[in-house]
Amino acid sequence: MNGNNRDMGIGIAGLGTVGATVARLILERSDKLAASTGQNMWLRAVSARDRTRDRGVDLSLARWCDDPVEIARRTDVDLVIELIGGSDGPALALAKEALSRGKALVTANKAMIAAHGQTLAALAEEHGGVLRFEAAVAGGIPILKALGEGLAANEVEKVSGILNGTCNYILSRMEAEGADFAAVLKDAQSLGYAESDPTFDVNGMDTAHKTVILSALAFGVAPSLEHLDVEGIESIAPVDIDYAKALGYRIRLLGVTDRSAAGISVRVHPAMVSSESALASVTGPTNAVMVEADPVGPTVYEGAGAGGGPTASAVLADVVDIARGVRSPAFGVPAQMLERRAPLAQGTLTLKAYLRLRVSDEPGVMAEISQIFAKSGVSIESLIQRGAAEGGGVYVVMTTHRAVEDDVVGVLDRLKAAESVLETPTMIRIEAA
Amino acid sequence: MNGNNRDMGIGIAGLGTVGATVARLILERSDKLAASTGQNMWLRAVSARDRTRDRGVDLSLARWCDDPVEIARRTDVDLVIELIGGSDGPALALAKEALSRGKALVTANKAMIAAHGQTLAALAEEHGGVLRFEAAVAGGIPILKALGEGLAANEVEKVSGILNGTCNYILSRMEAEGADFAAVLKDAQSLGYAESDPTFDVNGMDTAHKTVILSALAFGVAPSLEHLDVEGIESIAPVDIDYAKALGYRIRLLGVTDRSAAGISVRVHPAMVSSESALASVTGPTNAVMVEADPVGPTVYEGAGAGGGPTASAVLADVVDIARGVRSPAFGVPAQMLERRAPLAQGTLTLKAYLRLRVSDEPGVMAEISQIFAKSGVSIESLIQRGAAEGGGVYVVMTTHRAVEDDVVGVLDRLKAAESVLETPTMIRIEAA
Repeated sequence: MNGNNRDMGIGIAGLGTVGATVARLILERSDKLAASTGQNMWLRAVSARDRTRDRGVDLSLARWCDDPVEIARRTDVDLVIELIGGSDGPALALAKEALSRGKALVTANKAMIAAHGQTLAALAEEHGGVLRFEAAVAGGIPILKALGEGLAANEVEKVSGILNGTCNYILSRMEAEGADFAAVLKDAQSLGYAESDPTFDVNGMDTAHKTVILSALAFGVAPSLEHLDVEGIESIAPVDIDYAKALGYRIRLLGVTDRSAAGISVRVHPAMVSSESALASVTGPTNAVMVEADPVGPTVYEGAGAGGGPTASAVLADVVDIARGVRSPAFGVPAQMLERRAPLAQGTLTLKAYLRLRVSDEPGVMAEISQIFAKSGVSIESLIQRGAAEGGGVYVVMTTHRAVEDDVVGVLDRLKAAESVLETPTMIRIEAA
Repeated sequence: MNGNNRDMGIGIAGLGTVGATVARLILERSDKLAASTGQNMWLRAVSARDRTRDRGVDLSLARWCDDPVEIARRTDVDLVIELIGGSDGPALALAKEALSRGKALVTANKAMIAAHGQTLAALAEEHGGVLRFEAAVAGGIPILKALGEGLAANEVEKVSGILNGTCNYILSRMEAEGADFAAVLKDAQSLGYAESDPTFDVNGMDTAHKTVILSALAFGVAPSLEHLDVEGIESIAPVDIDYAKALGYRIRLLGVTDRSAAGISVRVHPAMVSSESALASVTGPTNAVMVEADPVGPTVYEGAGAGGGPTASAVLADVVDIARGVRSPAFGVPAQMLERRAPLAQGTLTLKAYLRLRVSDEPGVMAEISQIFAKSGVSIESLIQRGAAEGGGVYVVMTTHRAVEDDVVGVLDRLKAAESVLETPTMIRIEAA
């Protein structure tokens, strides 16, 4: 602490692992924080559901607030850290209260920012406050800072990220062990790598929230949950992981946002990435984000995507920025300048696909399949036919050259209807990243 | 451009590839820059050796200054971009002139910052100016921003980086082709991946300048060229690259700065890194930096380390920050708070080593070698003896467990003196990263 410094009062709402770690670091590292910001930080108020729980940190000098919104109303609190979670409810009420009083709000709440980010950013600007949410995306990796500041002069082309540690842990283990999704998920739950209710992790919604935020920063569009294309990892089969390997790919759940002739896309889906790529080497619960931009080229950012320590690191980076006087707009440009992300123009999107078919093992089948591709204007890049399939017949696996999405959908429809095709084909996108 | 915005006058000294790209982007992306900073940027003055050269950008609206220092004296220039290079001379004169007038200075000059960073930072603070040098380390990767801001609340433990694209390109090609250092260097020069005088690249000095800057930001020490331990890649032999592979390692030239019981170390040397590690997967002229810190854990940053586009991206990130009003101290804490980095305490440094010996192929040799290790208190982790050595005898390759550096040096001295050891042993450090 330094006598020449100004004082900054901090309040924390939500005292789970992240909140308790943030509180502990504010107390333990007060000298370091004071030296690097010129402000003495005081933890003045806290709020959580259970007052009695031992959180391993002495909170006796902070005022306990039963109602989190009360934190924002206290005159001795300048900066509110929201760690309650949930897109609406008390988290949103607290955020609005803090920002409409011109205070600083730091949050790790991806759902709230994805749904209400523009409203909150506008509120901050209107009242001279500041909104920051580094911890909402990719945990401890300072990716929003990289995108919004470090690459600020670039034109971003594409952002692709492994943004959900649970999914990446499951896919890595399926890859290493040849195990089933369901079996690995169960084990991941017992080891603490997956929540007891893992729905929003494995169905891609968690990744979607984060990708919406990345898209807003990358392209200057308002965060919005509209026009998302979201697919999870529930239907990834070990056989596809094996074929991916044979073709020189790994399967990762990616959040992707890019700008093309069709518009700005925000999509989440399992994707095949080259086994040589930086994203393929990311295993376990780690997160990684690749940004492709002009003139910097591709840059990759990798680190822990969740957990008390990494998330607290990101929360405190925002606190330090604010204490240093940084007041730049939350999404890089003023909230009213954020454009609306429109639905993608039909018929202009292109993709490269992996297709796995179970077909009857008879003469003429390959000819029939090839015909379908030729008629649809989709050209085959590689084809493997190998071994008997579970349930009868054989697997035929193909990768396509880049093709118009509508044409690929046409191929899929025709394949589904073909007599020799014994079950709905599996399609997984191939990403250049 | 926006009528409500303020105006910022910019001057650029040095119009090579980087300077010309920066100038072009300031002109071409003026609307984007204005929207994200609230300032209209005007390129008001430029300086370079050759006025007549066509740089592919229209500089007719900027005032040409024969003396670069004149740029800093112009009342219509608020921010000076120094791209002249060299630790002293006109670059330093320009930097001092700009900062002592309270102006902003952005530079890509690693040599100048490594040698005079504290003086310049103090000058900036004294006169209300601002000093930034993101482009000085790891090109387009916003690593200084990550370290100084994104991880500001962390206690950094170690920073390890592949910071020289030329060296990494050479090592990757030696790895892929089994070729000699000299042959690959020659080819790299003809392909433009190495300078006609590559001395400071291959001998590690370029990496050392960058590591000094990383160390200053990571540990709050004054940048200084004292107490460096620098070794280049000139003596890396294809046989060591092969043994590294067999042992599960890759050889990379690393800049490392860490804090241990011995003090804060800044060292540059070829190192064996696990072939599973993020740094091992970095091939070609790419740069990558791993930061290990508490509480965030390890994070990795990867991208192009040189070239007009990536470097211009970093220069402009600093310009954007300054235009947004960021005024935080250049090294994270005020210049007078930077501590002096002391020489390392002898006898407390530890390391893990790879050793390659050429020994005579006779009975009793292994016993003699094992004795030397046992007497020196260094324990062997693995040992390979395989095939005849060039020049006669056989190679014996060992890795040690972590041991006190003085003891490893003792082993080397005794091995050199041993009769059965036919040439000076090769030692390469093994890094956990």
